[in-house]
Amino acid sequence: MAMQRTSNWINTYFPISTWLKNYTREDLSGDVFAGIITAILLVPQGIAYAMLAGLPAQVGLYASILPPLMYALLGTSRTLSVGPVSIAAIMIASVLAAPEITALGGTVENAIILAAEGGVILLLMAMLRMGGLVNFISHPVLTGFTSGAAILIVLSQAPHLFGLTKNQCGLDLLCYSNYFQQLNLYTLALSLFSITLLLAFGSPLSTLLKRFNVKPSLITGLSKSAPLLAVIITTLVVTVYQLSDLQHVAIVGEIQPGLPDISFAFFTNMTQWQALLPGATFIAIIAYVESVAIAKVTANLRNQKINPNQELIALGVSNLATAFSGGMSVAGGFSRTMVNFSAGARTQMAMLIAVVLLSIAVMFFTEQFTYLPKAALAAIILIAIFPLIRLREIISTWKYDSGDGIAQLITLLGVLVLGIEEGIALGVIITILSYLRRTSRPHIAVVGRIKATEHFRNIKRHQVETWKNLLLIRIDENISFANVSYIVDFIEDETNNNADLKHVVLIFSSVSYIDSTAFEALENLISALKTKKILLHLAEVKGPVLDKLKQTSFLDQLSPGKVFFQTIEAVEKLNKQ
Amino acid sequence: MAMQRTSNWINTYFPISTWLKNYTREDLSGDVFAGIITAILLVPQGIAYAMLAGLPAQVGLYASILPPLMYALLGTSRTLSVGPVSIAAIMIASVLAAPEITALGGTVENAIILAAEGGVILLLMAMLRMGGLVNFISHPVLTGFTSGAAILIVLSQAPHLFGLTKNQCGLDLLCYSNYFQQLNLYTLALSLFSITLLLAFGSPLSTLLKRFNVKPSLITGLSKSAPLLAVIITTLVVTVYQLSDLQHVAIVGEIQPGLPDISFAFFTNMTQWQALLPGATFIAIIAYVESVAIAKVTANLRNQKINPNQELIALGVSNLATAFSGGMSVAGGFSRTMVNFSAGARTQMAMLIAVVLLSIAVMFFTEQFTYLPKAALAAIILIAIFPLIRLREIISTWKYDSGDGIAQLITLLGVLVLGIEEGIALGVIITILSYLRRTSRPHIAVVGRIKATEHFRNIKRHQVETWKNLLLIRIDENISFANVSYIVDFIEDETNNNADLKHVVLIFSSVSYIDSTAFEALENLISALKTKKILLHLAEVKGPVLDKLKQTSFLDQLSPGKVFFQTIEAVEKLNKQ
Repeated sequence: MAMQRTSNWINTYFPISTWLKNYTREDLSGDVFAGIITAILLVPQGIAYAMLAGLPAQVGLYASILPPLMYALLGTSRTLSVGPVSIAAIMIASVLAAPEITALGGTVENAIILAAEGGVILLLMAMLRMGGLVNFISHPVLTGFTSGAAILIVLSQAPHLFGLTKNQCGLDLLCYSNYFQQLNLYTLALSLFSITLLLAFGSPLSTLLKRFNVKPSLITGLSKSAPLLAVIITTLVVTVYQLSDLQHVAIVGEIQPGLPDISFAFFTNMTQWQALLPGATFIAIIAYVESVAIAKVTANLRNQKINPNQELIALGVSNLATAFSGGMSVAGGFSRTMVNFSAGARTQMAMLIAVVLLSIAVMFFTEQFTYLPKAALAAIILIAIFPLIRLREIISTWKYDSGDGIAQLITLLGVLVLGIEEGIALGVIITILSYLRRTSRPHIAVVGRIKATEHFRNIKRHQVETWKNLLLIRIDENISFANVSYIVDFIEDETNNNADLKHVVLIFSSVSYIDSTAFEALENLISALKTKKILLHLAEVKGPVLDKLKQTSFLDQLSPGKVFFQTIEAVEKLNKQ
Repeated sequence: MAMQRTSNWINTYFPISTWLKNYTREDLSGDVFAGIITAILLVPQGIAYAMLAGLPAQVGLYASILPPLMYALLGTSRTLSVGPVSIAAIMIASVLAAPEITALGGTVENAIILAAEGGVILLLMAMLRMGGLVNFISHPVLTGFTSGAAILIVLSQAPHLFGLTKNQCGLDLLCYSNYFQQLNLYTLALSLFSITLLLAFGSPLSTLLKRFNVKPSLITGLSKSAPLLAVIITTLVVTVYQLSDLQHVAIVGEIQPGLPDISFAFFTNMTQWQALLPGATFIAIIAYVESVAIAKVTANLRNQKINPNQELIALGVSNLATAFSGGMSVAGGFSRTMVNFSAGARTQMAMLIAVVLLSIAVMFFTEQFTYLPKAALAAIILIAIFPLIRLREIISTWKYDSGDGIAQLITLLGVLVLGIEEGIALGVIITILSYLRRTSRPHIAVVGRIKATEHFRNIKRHQVETWKNLLLIRIDENISFANVSYIVDFIEDETNNNADLKHVVLIFSSVSYIDSTAFEALENLISALKTKKILLHLAEVKGPVLDKLKQTSFLDQLSPGKVFFQTIEAVEKLNKQ
């Protein structure tokens, strides 16, 4: 019994144990291939997303070692590829660029604290079992946010593609003509080459190879190696023709070789922790929401299950691990996970293999990336990010539900105009307000008796018997602060139009909860009706609700109004009075 | 017809027209008496609440002239007494004391902009018909907030009562022993006298006079004149014994005589408007919520109706009016309205009479208030504010519903520890989160057929027929981003435990709305079930919902799953397959 419990506990908190004990040779062959493919993607993505976040390349590479290892131990998704991701990277860039943050210390140090704090926040959310709360980031808000962030990413990469410095012109048009004169044609050529390569290796190459009956696994392998190929070819070109020295093509520069040191130094500076708290919260929540969404997509396809609360733990520990090892914030990446999955990954073993390969690269091959042109990285980011701009989805959402469409568009515009965090906060607020507004109009029906039966139905929809001195009102929802004023107004309107009225019976068959605001409003309703010489009664009150009302003086105030077990009893008793 | 419409329009937007045309001699006699009594209260309250807000006395007096006049024209409550109020006053004090605000300009100027901005915000809310949104400040949050603000008011008045300067000691205990040595015994004596007078003129005097068969209206008049009496007596004492010059008793000082000038100067400074926006929003919302709550209490007692949206207009214009005439933000005051009501006010004519009397005081008698000791004003504030500290209500709320009790206590503590605006924001956030959490678990039932009937009931509560290959699930609420993941999880759990299952029928009889997040999740559910070789069907779909689904490719994705008109059709068709 005790052993059983221990084993359940291990299965819950270390999901690795559920697949590792049944691990087969077939699983391994799938995982090895997928691991190699994912590693090929992970190296350029690690460097590129570090650049996107405004950080040195090794910060992105370090984030690709310990975090996926921790996620493999703790995560419930078998194919999620945890590491640096584009949306989190642009959020990190935006947080770290704020003047009040740059004043506080080194950029890398701030990025590490951001990751650690995000990890702590996710673990806290796990402890409070708040995994469900992220459901309140509705789909339209998330899509609007992702599209907006993706547009910002594309804009941020444009200077790298054209070999320009960062655009500081704002709305000064004259400035732009000078700015564009900086255009570096060598850089542009490298960008165009990389983009063409990446596009060609997508569906065109697959279609071609399929026609030649090439093995599907080889097709996958080839088409997914485009980013690494672009990196290798452009680096060779830059090195051989000395484009960096002679033509000022921007390069990544020296990457610190070797595995990261483990350090806890970032725990000391409380001012930084405080200043970074809002940014860390936003990044952590978005990282979690995006990761779970992607994990669910792949899990559904294989009939597996994601446990949202365990994901909070796994992603929380992964983000702490990235901080300990000098990396940036991590999450499950959409494109990388889909590559991993479609390359045939069966379990997180694929990611463990990818981590080993990446570690080898970090230990022995960083020198080779010194002359890697930033243009190639920008091209990789561009191609990876473009599918996330889903403007067509905004139109289809709008067609389906204009309220949701508005929320989506406002979130997108908010991200572009106000800023990343502000945009998503605005979207969430609008969604919750419109939800509250909608739920504040509960369904209420005036009911009458279907003749010669004990059934009561809506007078608007059925031929029913009604009475001059007696009004039956059925309330179809729980009564709370959000809807009680609508309910009270409804009852007051109904009673105002009716001079002969003596009794109002509220049918509580669907009411299983009355909060204290509603309770107070109902008490006020009783006395307001009494001044009109109308008595309020209740019928079909559920046990728990009645128990609660009995704890208070509600029933005394109701008196001489009564609580009836059945509506029919109320009718038989009251319609003669 | 056109005239009819015009007259409806006038009745809606100028509620004064509804009572003025039927105004009787009886109404007048009630209103004159109530007007005198309210004016007697309005003068000391105007000075006292200006002091509470940290403003010169005339700013409170000016707020008692134009605003009640505007409210009389536009407001739907017949007895609400609009003018300076204590809760708004302490909020104004808190906003104006912030260093980033004091840096921007004169305190009076900032207070006027705060009022104007509040007015604009209320009018905007009226245009957007957002009156209903304030229902989301739940009763526990409002009580917690009021109690917390009232405690802050009492603490802020303590120095005035003891003749001390503002306490700057913080947690330095040594500092306190020096601080208390400043204690001014003359001031303390004036405070104690005023408090005793105010308490004695409450129920003790009424009981005594009743025993001597004094006319009830005279009793009301006498007992409500205590504040003015305290003001007159203490002013006389200070003047005669020169306590201000010889004993350093703090006095109000010179009040600018005459009626206010109308000025629009405050419209120019946009930096100030921007800086004051958050504070103005909070004050406007609280002013509105408190005013409507008080208006409803008195209206209910006389079977009258409050129109929340018209109240936004009336209070918005009142706050603009106070700004134009150099006054502070206004709202309906609780104690003053109750005094007005219980003194027999029938209509806003009472307030118009009070305004005339107050204007006379402002024109000719300001000099008489110069030696008014601040101690007497503090005593008036103290007695007025004490009933608003409702700690007992927190206990009773807690007993009724622990969640609401926690929200109330957190709001109260938030106001005391974090600040006024922060406290109420915290309370609102907590209430909305717990509401969302609660509504995210909708009622769902697996149903079966009551034998030989066409009725379907919950399998947990009734003896019903079920089938191995067919699962009927009834969803009892609208499906939205807030609850769809619960619903999908429920369906997936049910289908996981069932190997023979071929068909799932969702009964949508209670679903009248599906938002786009839910729509997308249902589409994903269809394909997830298909991988398990289970078909999803719908039954009893309402017309509007079906119309919306038909606009999309949902039904194609559902196919070969079907939409059945009645649940019984689905059963007859599917249970054989």
